[in-house]
Amino acid sequence: MKWKKVALAMLALACTVSLSACGFHHKTSSSNSNYTTTGGGGRNYQGVIEHGHYKVSKSRGVNVNQNSENQYNLKSFESGLTDVSKRVFSPRTYVFQEGQKLTTATTEDWLGRKSAKNPSGLNPVKGSSSNPNPTYIQQIEEQDYMKQNGSSLSLRGMTIGIGVNSVYYYRKTTNGPQYSRNISDAEVKQQGEQAAAKVLQRMRKKPGCKNIPIVIALYKQAPNDSLVGGNFFEYTRASGNSIGTWHKLSEKTTVMPKSSSTNTENQSNESDSDNFSNFKSQVQSFFPNISGVTAQAKYENGNLAGMHITVTTQFYSETEIQSFSQYIAQAANKYLPNGIPIDIRIQSDSEMQALVFRNSGSNKFQTHVLTSY
Amino acid sequence: MKWKKVALAMLALACTVSLSACGFHHKTSSSNSNYTTTGGGGRNYQGVIEHGHYKVSKSRGVNVNQNSENQYNLKSFESGLTDVSKRVFSPRTYVFQEGQKLTTATTEDWLGRKSAKNPSGLNPVKGSSSNPNPTYIQQIEEQDYMKQNGSSLSLRGMTIGIGVNSVYYYRKTTNGPQYSRNISDAEVKQQGEQAAAKVLQRMRKKPGCKNIPIVIALYKQAPNDSLVGGNFFEYTRASGNSIGTWHKLSEKTTVMPKSSSTNTENQSNESDSDNFSNFKSQVQSFFPNISGVTAQAKYENGNLAGMHITVTTQFYSETEIQSFSQYIAQAANKYLPNGIPIDIRIQSDSEMQALVFRNSGSNKFQTHVLTSY
Repeated sequence: MKWKKVALAMLALACTVSLSACGFHHKTSSSNSNYTTTGGGGRNYQGVIEHGHYKVSKSRGVNVNQNSENQYNLKSFESGLTDVSKRVFSPRTYVFQEGQKLTTATTEDWLGRKSAKNPSGLNPVKGSSSNPNPTYIQQIEEQDYMKQNGSSLSLRGMTIGIGVNSVYYYRKTTNGPQYSRNISDAEVKQQGEQAAAKVLQRMRKKPGCKNIPIVIALYKQAPNDSLVGGNFFEYTRASGNSIGTWHKLSEKTTVMPKSSSTNTENQSNESDSDNFSNFKSQVQSFFPNISGVTAQAKYENGNLAGMHITVTTQFYSETEIQSFSQYIAQAANKYLPNGIPIDIRIQSDSEMQALVFRNSGSNKFQTHVLTSY
Repeated sequence: MKWKKVALAMLALACTVSLSACGFHHKTSSSNSNYTTTGGGGRNYQGVIEHGHYKVSKSRGVNVNQNSENQYNLKSFESGLTDVSKRVFSPRTYVFQEGQKLTTATTEDWLGRKSAKNPSGLNPVKGSSSNPNPTYIQQIEEQDYMKQNGSSLSLRGMTIGIGVNSVYYYRKTTNGPQYSRNISDAEVKQQGEQAAAKVLQRMRKKPGCKNIPIVIALYKQAPNDSLVGGNFFEYTRASGNSIGTWHKLSEKTTVMPKSSSTNTENQSNESDSDNFSNFKSQVQSFFPNISGVTAQAKYENGNLAGMHITVTTQFYSETEIQSFSQYIAQAANKYLPNGIPIDIRIQSDSEMQALVFRNSGSNKFQTHVLTSY
C-alpha cells in the first residue's frame, strides 16, 4: 500500500530531471535520495518532496506562537523572506527547502532571554519588573537553497530572517495592565545586527554550513494593533564568519484608507491615496448596504509595488457576486495603478465569495467567483 | 456630494454605448434613464447599474430564508438559473437585471400554502398533522433580460426558476421529532409543471410581461444533508399564455469521494472517481498532518462538466502554501480531466489560503496564493 502510494507519486511527477515547469524528479538505487519537487517555475521556487511527502521545516510552527498577537507579521515575514532570497538565489537554479538545521528546541532557546539555564538566548535578561529590558528578537526563520548534486540535492545556500520588535509589550505584574515601549529604528537595527552576527557564527558550526553563502535579512515587526505586517529593512550575504556589508531595503507596508488611530507613519503617497479613495467610493455605492473596502499596500523605493484589497459586505446572491466582481474589475482597471500585482478579495461574513486579481506583469484583471454546484 | 459621486461613477464607466467588455453607458437629459452596466463580456452577462447603484432584486433575500437548511441549494439554483438563461438569451445581446416584477411579499405568498388568507399559495393545504401534504415549491426566482431601447433599457425576456423539493421534512408536533418523506422524480416534475403553468399566467398580467419570451426552469432541490445542491431538470420557453414544450436538461450534481451515508444516487462514473481518488491520495500525503480533500462534481449528458474541490489541512506557513499550491496544480494537471473548469480551494481553519483553478477552455492551472503584506 505504501509502495503503491510512492509509485503513484513518482508516476505523477515523472518528468525530466531538469528545472522544468512540471517539476523535476530523481530516483536512484538508494531510496534515501528519492526526491521530487513541487513544480512551479518562473518567479517561484520549486519545493522539495522526499518519499512523496513535503519536507517540512525542523522548526515548523515556532513562529506561529511567536506572532500570536499579530498574524500579519508572520505572513509578511515569511513571504518577504522568500523575496529577499530571490535577490541572491535565483529560482531558476536553486530549489527551495524548508529549514532543516534549526530545530524547534534551538529556535525557542535563541528566541528566549539569556540566562544561566539558557546561555544561547538572543534577548537580554529581564532586569527590573517595573522597567524591564525589551525582548528584541521576536522570530527567526531558516530557508535552505539546494542544487542538484549527482543523484541528490545539496545545500548550497541559506537565508535566515530575524524579526525585531518595534514595540515591546510588557506587564509589571502578572495580571496588571499592559505597558508598551517603542523601540527606535536605530535600536531595531543595532539589536538586529548584533543578533545576526551571533546567528551567523552559530550556523557556521552546523554540518554542511561552513562554506555556503548565508544571507541574513532583518525585519522590523509591526505593532500588535497594525493591520499590516512589518518589513525587511536590510540584508547581508556572508561568505565567511563575519557579517558582510548590509544592503538597505527600501520597503514599506501601509494600510489604506489612512487611519488616524494607528501610530505607524503612513507611507502612502497622496495620489495613491486619492486613487484608492475613488476606487473605494465607487465600490461602496454599489449595494444598498454599504461595503467595507480596505487595503494593504507595499512600497518599494517610494513607489507603490502591490496591493491586497478586501471588500466586505453583508449579503450577496450568486448573480450579485457575479455582477459585483465584474464591476470591481472595471473600477480597479480605471482607478488603481497599472503594472503592479493587485488582488481584491470579496467577502461576506468571513467567507470569500470571489477573487479579482491581476498578476505582476499583466494589465488585465481576472475575476473568479467561488460558486457551488 | 451625491452629484459628485454620480459624476465619478459616470467618469469611471464612460465607455462607448455598445456591449463592449468595459461596459456600456447611457446618459440622457432625463435622469431616470441614467444607467450603466457592470462590464463583463464574453461568457458573462453585464448587470444593470442605475444612478451608480446596482439594481438589486425586488425580492432580494427571500431565497436565503427558503434555503436556510441547505445553502448549496441556494447557490446552485442561482448559478444554474443563469446557465439556463444563457441557452435562450445570449450574453452578447442581452443585459442581465435582477428580477423587478416579483416582490418579496408576492414571492412569499406564492411559496406559502394555499388558504383562504393566501389564495395565491402554490403549495397545498397542510391537511392532517400526522400525515401532512408536502410543501413542494421551495424557491422561486425571477431574472430579467434587457435590451437597449433608445436611451434606456427595455425588458425583452425573463427567466423564472422554480425549486421543487425532493424530500419533505415535517414535524407532527411543534417540538417533536423530524420526519421526512421522499418525493419521487415523477411527482417533482408534475408539481413543478403545475406551478409553472400558474406562474406563467400570473406573470403575463404584470406590466411589460404580456409579450416577452418567458423561460421557466424547474429545479429539483437536494436533500438537507447533501453536500452539493440539486439540479435543473427541464425548461420551457413560453411566448404566449400556455407553457410550451419542456426541454430535458441532463444535468446531475454529485459529491466525491463517494459517500455511503447519503441517500442520493451517486452519479459519478467509475473512471472519474478513480482519477479523483488518485488526485486525493497524492495531495493527502503531502503534509505530515492529513489533508481533507472533497469535491462537488457536475455532470452534463453523462460527462463530467466541472468540479469544485476543497482541500483543508491544519496549518500552513507561507512557504508551505506556496509549495502546496504548486504541487496541487501539478497533481491536478496529471489526474483531473482536461477541458472542463475546475477550481481547488486550499483552506486552513475556515480561511482560504490559496486558489488553484483552470477556466473553461483553458488547459493550464493557475495558482493564486492569498498572501499578506
